[in-house]
Amino acid sequence: MIDYKLLEALATVIETGGFERAGAVLGLSQSAISQRIRTLEVRIGQPVLFRSPVPRATPAGQQLLNHVQQVQLLERDLAKSLPTLSEPTARLRIALNADSLATWWAMAIGEFCRSEILLLDMLVEDQDIALRRMREGDVAACLCSNSQPVAGARCIPLGSMTYLPLATPSYKTQYFNQGFNEQSLQSAPAIVFGPNDQLQHRFLAQNGYHGAFPYHLCPSSEGFVKLALAGMGYGMIPEIQAQHEIKAGRLVSIAPGQSLEVELYWHFWRHSGGVMERLTTALKAARP
Amino acid sequence: MIDYKLLEALATVIETGGFERAGAVLGLSQSAISQRIRTLEVRIGQPVLFRSPVPRATPAGQQLLNHVQQVQLLERDLAKSLPTLSEPTARLRIALNADSLATWWAMAIGEFCRSEILLLDMLVEDQDIALRRMREGDVAACLCSNSQPVAGARCIPLGSMTYLPLATPSYKTQYFNQGFNEQSLQSAPAIVFGPNDQLQHRFLAQNGYHGAFPYHLCPSSEGFVKLALAGMGYGMIPEIQAQHEIKAGRLVSIAPGQSLEVELYWHFWRHSGGVMERLTTALKAARP
Repeated sequence: MIDYKLLEALATVIETGGFERAGAVLGLSQSAISQRIRTLEVRIGQPVLFRSPVPRATPAGQQLLNHVQQVQLLERDLAKSLPTLSEPTARLRIALNADSLATWWAMAIGEFCRSEILLLDMLVEDQDIALRRMREGDVAACLCSNSQPVAGARCIPLGSMTYLPLATPSYKTQYFNQGFNEQSLQSAPAIVFGPNDQLQHRFLAQNGYHGAFPYHLCPSSEGFVKLALAGMGYGMIPEIQAQHEIKAGRLVSIAPGQSLEVELYWHFWRHSGGVMERLTTALKAARP
Repeated sequence: MIDYKLLEALATVIETGGFERAGAVLGLSQSAISQRIRTLEVRIGQPVLFRSPVPRATPAGQQLLNHVQQVQLLERDLAKSLPTLSEPTARLRIALNADSLATWWAMAIGEFCRSEILLLDMLVEDQDIALRRMREGDVAACLCSNSQPVAGARCIPLGSMTYLPLATPSYKTQYFNQGFNEQSLQSAPAIVFGPNDQLQHRFLAQNGYHGAFPYHLCPSSEGFVKLALAGMGYGMIPEIQAQHEIKAGRLVSIAPGQSLEVELYWHFWRHSGGVMERLTTALKAARP
C-alpha cells in the first residue's frame, strides 16, 4: 500500500500553503515534512510540488491529492461504524461561485458541517477554472453553472438563481430617463464581476445589445452590491441578495420584468463515500 | 513620442482579457489588435504580453501599462481645462483588501466616481501581492495594511478597521462554555479567509495561543459572515460589517472586550495628476 504519512504531508503542505505550517499542523519539523515530500518524489519518480512562490501540486501531485482526499472521506465512514477509531476530522475542498458563497450556501450546509464536524476549504472560482480544478483532482466537488460532467464525476442540478439588473433610483433617473435602450446602455456605467463575467454579456445580448459599454470591474459579491448602492453603476445582482434593498426602495430594476436565470450544478466524484453523499442530500434539500 | 495607439491596444487587451474583446472595445478587428501588439514588441525589442492562457503583461509590458495609465490620468486633467477635447473616460486600476471593498469603500468613493465619470478596475488582493502589483506598475493605487511605501509612490494612513471574534450564541455555548482558553481554541472551528490570513493568527497570538486549530477556509468577505451566522465557526469580522447582526444578537463575541485593529494605508504613484489627488482627498474625508 501507499505510505499515507507521505500523502498526508503533501496534502497538509497544500492545505496550509507552506512546509513550516504543515509541520506545525502535523506536529513535525519543517525538515521532516521536506523529507517526506522528497521520499514521495523519489518513490513516484517525479516532482509532486512546485516549490515557489507558494507550494503548488504538479499534475502528479494533484492526482495524489485527489486520491488522499477520497481516502480521508472513506475513513470517516469507517469511523462511524467503528467508533473506537479516533475521530478523524475530514476536510473537503470545494470550488464554488462567489454569489452562492455570498448568499444561500452557508445556510444550506451549515447544520450538516456542524453535526458531521466537517471542515471546508472553499475556493471561489469561475466555472471554467472550477471544472479544471475538478478534472485535475484539486477539489472534491464543485458548484457552478456548467452542466457538463467531468469524467468519473457525477453532476446533478441544484436549481437556479435569479439575477436582476439593479441600480439606485437616482442612477436610473440619470442614465435611463429616456428608457432602456441602446443609447442609454452605451453611456451607463455597469458593474462587472471580472473580465469573464458572462452575466452582463448575456443580459445585454438578451436585449439585442452587442456594443461596448463603460464598466467598473469588481470581483467581490458584497462589493458589487455596495457599488450599486453607492450609485456607481447597475449590475446583475442575485435577487436573494438584494431583496431587502429592493423592498426598501434603495435598489430598483433598470429594466423591470427582465431577469436572468443561472442554473447551478453540483459536481462530485463518484465513490467519495458517505460524507459526500450525505452532503449532496443536504444540498438538494436546501438549494436556492 | 511613443505611438499611443499601440499602448492603448496593450492596455485594452489586459483590461478586457483578450484580443477579440479588445478589438470590440476599440472598434478594431482582432488581427488589427495583434498587429499593434506585434509592432510594439518589434519596436521595444521584447515581448510585452504572455499570450496564454489569458494575456498577461511581461515586466516590460507592465512598465508600459503603468506609463499609459498615468498618461490617461494626465489627459483627464487636460480635458478639464480644455473642455473642447472630447472627454476621455478614465479607468483606474486599484488593488484593495476584500474587507474594505465589502464594507466602506463604495460609499467613500461612489460620489467622486459619479461626478468625475471615473471607472474603476478593482482587484482584490492580499497586501503582499497588492504591493507587488504596485511595484510592477500593474495598478495605479493600492489599499492595504502595509505602511512601507513603494519607490516612486506615496503612502498615507487611512485610519483603521476594528475586527471582533464573532460567532452565533449557540456556537459560543457549544465551544466556549468552559471559557475562552487553550482547550476550547483547540477544538472550536475557526473561519479563515485564506492560507495567508494574518488576522486569525494575530488574534490567537495576542491571546498567547500558538497551537493548531480546526478551520474552514472561506475567501469571501460576505461568505465569511454567512458561515459565522450558520454556526459553522467563529471568525474575525469587521465591526462595521457585523453591526446589525451584533445588535440583533445573532452574532456575539467569543472573547468580549477583545478586538484587533488593522491599519489601512493608501499607496499611489506620485505625479499621477489631479484625478488621483482628488480621489485621495475624497478617501481621506470618508475613511473608515
